[in-house]
Amino acid sequence: MNRQPRVGVIGGGQLARMMHAAGIGLGIHISLLAEGPDVSAAQVVADTTVGDYTDRDTVRRFAAECDVLTFDHEHVPTAILQELEADCAVAVRPGTGALLLAQDKAVMRRRLSAIGIPCPNFEIVRDAVELAAFGDRIGWPIIAKTSRGGYDGKGVWKLSSSAESEVPFGDLKPGVVIIAEEFVDFVRELSAIVVRSPSGQAVAYPVSETVQRQGVCVETTTPAPGLDQDVATAAQHLALTIANELGVVGVLAVELMERRSGEVVVNELAMRPHNTGHWSIDGARTSQFENHLRAVLDLPLGSPHTSAPWTVMVNILGGARPDLVAGLHHCFAHDNRLRVQLYGKPVSPGRKVGHVCVSGDDLDDVRRRARDAASYLMGESRE
Amino acid sequence: MNRQPRVGVIGGGQLARMMHAAGIGLGIHISLLAEGPDVSAAQVVADTTVGDYTDRDTVRRFAAECDVLTFDHEHVPTAILQELEADCAVAVRPGTGALLLAQDKAVMRRRLSAIGIPCPNFEIVRDAVELAAFGDRIGWPIIAKTSRGGYDGKGVWKLSSSAESEVPFGDLKPGVVIIAEEFVDFVRELSAIVVRSPSGQAVAYPVSETVQRQGVCVETTTPAPGLDQDVATAAQHLALTIANELGVVGVLAVELMERRSGEVVVNELAMRPHNTGHWSIDGARTSQFENHLRAVLDLPLGSPHTSAPWTVMVNILGGARPDLVAGLHHCFAHDNRLRVQLYGKPVSPGRKVGHVCVSGDDLDDVRRRARDAASYLMGESRE
Repeated sequence: MNRQPRVGVIGGGQLARMMHAAGIGLGIHISLLAEGPDVSAAQVVADTTVGDYTDRDTVRRFAAECDVLTFDHEHVPTAILQELEADCAVAVRPGTGALLLAQDKAVMRRRLSAIGIPCPNFEIVRDAVELAAFGDRIGWPIIAKTSRGGYDGKGVWKLSSSAESEVPFGDLKPGVVIIAEEFVDFVRELSAIVVRSPSGQAVAYPVSETVQRQGVCVETTTPAPGLDQDVATAAQHLALTIANELGVVGVLAVELMERRSGEVVVNELAMRPHNTGHWSIDGARTSQFENHLRAVLDLPLGSPHTSAPWTVMVNILGGARPDLVAGLHHCFAHDNRLRVQLYGKPVSPGRKVGHVCVSGDDLDDVRRRARDAASYLMGESRE
Repeated sequence: MNRQPRVGVIGGGQLARMMHAAGIGLGIHISLLAEGPDVSAAQVVADTTVGDYTDRDTVRRFAAECDVLTFDHEHVPTAILQELEADCAVAVRPGTGALLLAQDKAVMRRRLSAIGIPCPNFEIVRDAVELAAFGDRIGWPIIAKTSRGGYDGKGVWKLSSSAESEVPFGDLKPGVVIIAEEFVDFVRELSAIVVRSPSGQAVAYPVSETVQRQGVCVETTTPAPGLDQDVATAAQHLALTIANELGVVGVLAVELMERRSGEVVVNELAMRPHNTGHWSIDGARTSQFENHLRAVLDLPLGSPHTSAPWTVMVNILGGARPDLVAGLHHCFAHDNRLRVQLYGKPVSPGRKVGHVCVSGDDLDDVRRRARDAASYLMGESRE
């Protein structure tokens, strides 16, 4: 017999979609629990169950058919997963111990500080008065964040004075708190992606430079141009330390801010394949998606090394061009080395609907080609 | 709207499976007509219909949902496809004109000879007497082949004298004839893979050296080591000429024999992604599977150039190791740059159940690593 391991993926977004593409070659069976029959990953995964990931019985029935559970997103209620872990019903990877931290930025910040990871100055604040006091003490502007549920710039505010200190408390959900944080006037943002397996093997991808607009990643360059080798190594080391200390299994993405001093501080974490690692499909020996699957199955990890001197990834955000595949005619005709991933999602303004990658020797050329293609596909340019 | 083109693939083998993996990134919808619910591609393609590809109504119903039809194999009855083409119900790519040739080696040989493509000396023979006469005239041994239905060494005989001339006529099916052919004492076998789109754009992959055992491909090296540049160019030119003359759309694989003189002659053709092109998943800028899909959709084709100086592909043929995924632990631990495709097929002796690829600068090292991994996965070695 030749039994295929069954990896259950909860969540049907583009991360699950790209995981499936990577899993095909490994001969592993992906089972998908999707939010709907037409979501990104459900369009391509043969074994798809449509169901509510917040429903205990749905998740338990789904898990019963799997050897290991992993995730497209971080929103599965932890209580459901803890119960599965307690029953030893299925391997949950990353485990709930780690996921709890990823779901709650307040818990995470305290934990990271406790293990000596450099973070921006922060404080959990109960109300606008405490928030204003934090700003007055640390200096304005400051950042305020919800501890849970934020993504792509949602649930994050930049506040310029105490007059704005009521804003984040507008409609807080139960169990959500506000974190007040120093505004780091960073030189640039970086991302350090590592992958760790249950047996403790870990690999670190080269550090990427990332560009965000309104809190949404728009572009990455790998390796980060001109990054001091010591800083790069420190960033990789820091990500490996976090993965190890928190017992992460699978991809851990650590978004960092580089201060003018050269020091890097942690901005956000994600325990799943991450937008800032999409370049690895085309620019690394082993993609983050394949290594995530290898990690959750405790297979030895693949080389994270680059396969070209430079790889630039640019996100395709929903814009004026509704028909992306038609746009490929133009882009492929212009650039026969362009690499594209379309996510099969309806185009709506600002939504991440795909990305492009270009690899090569000449950074300026690589970046221009990637931007040109993305800009065309977003309907921003006509050539 | 963002309508995804729907490509219907008939046949659920590993070629359809790898096509699906390539199609995910292009944002195209693959519909599969599979022989059974558990065949290789049916395990991974979301939109799978199980049905008999020799049944006219099944194929017509399937085609009605697609923009274009393409194939995992060459066994769909041409009459069904000709009717679809005549009705303009769907684009059939490659078209039936070309497919007819791919299905019948006798028709193909005559056509190739007519357009001046170098082939071994051959003759269509009606019985053992004519076969023996051919052998006596051209010199023994000779090759005999059925015009239809042969694959992986089946339907091919090497005959050493007229005493064996009855063998190929054992149980011929209706419509099948025997081709008698000169035995070419080749130096080596080569494969020239090209991809052509309906609008006439074509790309040629570098020529591969291929190794066959008992008529089954076991290994390819790309580019073919030490191949004279003029011969390589001639082989590519020859494949492009055939694709153009026959109006092929999609991948055309031309298997060639290199005579001691350096001249190349055509052995076999296939109008679909081909085993000798699997190296391109890991060793070329654009894989044959992606380019096949781009061609059938008339999207501009991607670069066929190599992404490493050498890529060696070794097939995993079913052997003593039933559990391939378990074997990956060992192989990945030994070589973190090993690339693997497993096809999800039950392991049975000699069956193609997967392949491995290694790319790099040092051919001896690359070849050794690829062979070591395949040999382990086939249960031939324990390290």
